[in-house]
Amino acid sequence: DKYKIAVIPGDGIGNEVMEAAIYVLNALNINFDYVYGEAGDECLEKNGTALPDETLDIIRNSDACLFGAAGETAADVIVKIRQEMKMFANLRPVKSYPNTNSLSDNIDFMIVRENTEGLYIAGEESYTDEGAVARRIITREAEKRIIEYAFKYAKENNKSKVTGVHKANVLKKSDGLFKDVFYEVAKRYPEIATEDYYVDATAMYLITKPESFDVIVTTNLFGDILSDEGAGLVGGLGLIPSANIGEDAALFEPVHGSAPDIAGQGKANPIAMMLSAIMMLRYLGENEAANRFDGAILKVLNEADILTGDLGGSATTMELAEEVKNNL
Amino acid sequence: DKYKIAVIPGDGIGNEVMEAAIYVLNALNINFDYVYGEAGDECLEKNGTALPDETLDIIRNSDACLFGAAGETAADVIVKIRQEMKMFANLRPVKSYPNTNSLSDNIDFMIVRENTEGLYIAGEESYTDEGAVARRIITREAEKRIIEYAFKYAKENNKSKVTGVHKANVLKKSDGLFKDVFYEVAKRYPEIATEDYYVDATAMYLITKPESFDVIVTTNLFGDILSDEGAGLVGGLGLIPSANIGEDAALFEPVHGSAPDIAGQGKANPIAMMLSAIMMLRYLGENEAANRFDGAILKVLNEADILTGDLGGSATTMELAEEVKNNL
Ligand SMILES: CC(C)[C@H](C(=O)O)[C@@H](O)C(=O)O
Ligand SMILES: CC(C)[C@H](C(=O)O)[C@@H](O)C(=O)O
Repeated sequence: DKYKIAVIPGDGIGNEVMEAAIYVLNALNINFDYVYGEAGDECLEKNGTALPDETLDIIRNSDACLFGAAGETAADVIVKIRQEMKMFANLRPVKSYPNTNSLSDNIDFMIVRENTEGLYIAGEESYTDEGAVARRIITREAEKRIIEYAFKYAKENNKSKVTGVHKANVLKKSDGLFKDVFYEVAKRYPEIATEDYYVDATAMYLITKPESFDVIVTTNLFGDILSDEGAGLVGGLGLIPSANIGEDAALFEPVHGSAPDIAGQGKANPIAMMLSAIMMLRYLGENEAANRFDGAILKVLNEADILTGDLGGSATTMELAEEVKNNL
Repeated sequence: DKYKIAVIPGDGIGNEVMEAAIYVLNALNINFDYVYGEAGDECLEKNGTALPDETLDIIRNSDACLFGAAGETAADVIVKIRQEMKMFANLRPVKSYPNTNSLSDNIDFMIVRENTEGLYIAGEESYTDEGAVARRIITREAEKRIIEYAFKYAKENNKSKVTGVHKANVLKKSDGLFKDVFYEVAKRYPEIATEDYYVDATAMYLITKPESFDVIVTTNLFGDILSDEGAGLVGGLGLIPSANIGEDAALFEPVHGSAPDIAGQGKANPIAMMLSAIMMLRYLGENEAANRFDGAILKVLNEADILTGDLGGSATTMELAEEVKNNL
């Protein structure tokens, strides 16, 4: 097999962490054909658009896409890709690793975020200098699809519980619908435990009982907020990868941004990007390679010898990559 | 002075924590005239409405209102009161106390939450069984008012920084407006430092650098989510009071709910309700009494002898109240 991988490093540390991840990928003896595409702030400056059609085509014609980070234009780039490619499921694992600032050693849950609607699509139709109205759209179709995805994910990965998160006490119709659909789908998975919480309560429980969560499924913006909170739980964004999955396209990106403050200094933590590449390997069915890559990262974190600054070390991005490669 | 205080215990532990708070208030030698009003689930069952007009009148005719908690009907009761009484500012202090499960000893910030608009008012106009649209309304007037409130609060309380929280990268018009107004108002307070973050980043920073925050100002639902997260930071909802402030009305309530699981057992932690009563005392200008009450709670927490179950002790609600009273 030869895989066609769209590679979009983007801006800032996106370039650095991408180089590091690909450095390790290349040591796995899998045949990758990388096709590079541009997107982001620099691309905007150069080409007059932050997301050229050619880049979308590259993603369209790939087996999977690796995405680094975009700067100021992040919303225009990544939200547009998610929507154009109908990548409806955004998967964000939150997991405590050794020798990190994790609040607890036993955090391990997956946030399954709806990726196409909510407050992210409708735009703000009416606005003046005095006010604006944004529309939050919740459809049975999209929420059912994501909830089903979450339950399937739980089943296939031996997770015992799915938590539905909403604000149905205030958003009685839209999140009421989410809650109804959640329990409709749950009925078909009697072996999986279920619970539902309000989003505010969830924001508290993530801190007071993070070990209690297995799989969380929620609407778009709530998933955005809770996954960054999840990053905080396990020591920061340097360790949170993500997958954007659709019927015929998939994109893998770290949850962190382009970090202009440390860009170009070769000291960014590449682990979130590497973990994203591992999610890609599993998506492609390359589980053995994924396990090797994962095991190597775990060894490096366990040894805690060669770590980047955010993890308390002083290694460069590529020194860490080298160390991971040596531990494959 | 004789103060007319509207007292709405509500449901579940609302009754128990209210009794405890009033027990201590009565030992402060201030002349309070308590007028009790009904609201909540039990009230709905009894009177066919969760929020009778008489209760609204009692609040209207009071100098301040103490509110316990409502059960399933919480949204209908408390959101309606906030809107009817135009209580535009929701203040939620997050503070670490000794001998609690706080993530850090130096957490001390105030969340100033807009309390009248955002996703909380517009209702969901169009909905079918297949989908629903909620409208998120952001007006210059309401956001300017709350941002001004936050800066004034910072100034009067010697806080050095105000953080504006929004999602202007996605909600470009509405939260773009919030951000613009934030910096417009900030200009008039050159002595106060400012910063603005996306709500998702804030959810992370609250965990990774909670000590860095002084005053956070944000829109309605973001304030709801972040304040519960704040509760998690300092060991749970048992310690988070709140104030709802308008031009001619003010209501003080713990952020926690009616906790049906422990209701009626006399073991609820009354401190959030007591801290709410202290916020009321300050609102009424009774600063000396507020300081005494506050000091007594601090002593009880420092001694860590008489604490409720959520704080690792085994005292009852009223035993804790007795202990606070003895330390006045
Ligand atoms: C850049 C931004 C639009 C994006 C989002 O809100 O989805 C980011 O925060 C994320 O979580 O991927
Ligand atoms: C009960 C609910 C409607 C309310 C809110 O969302 O404002 C509560 O969560 C709060 O924070 O006071």
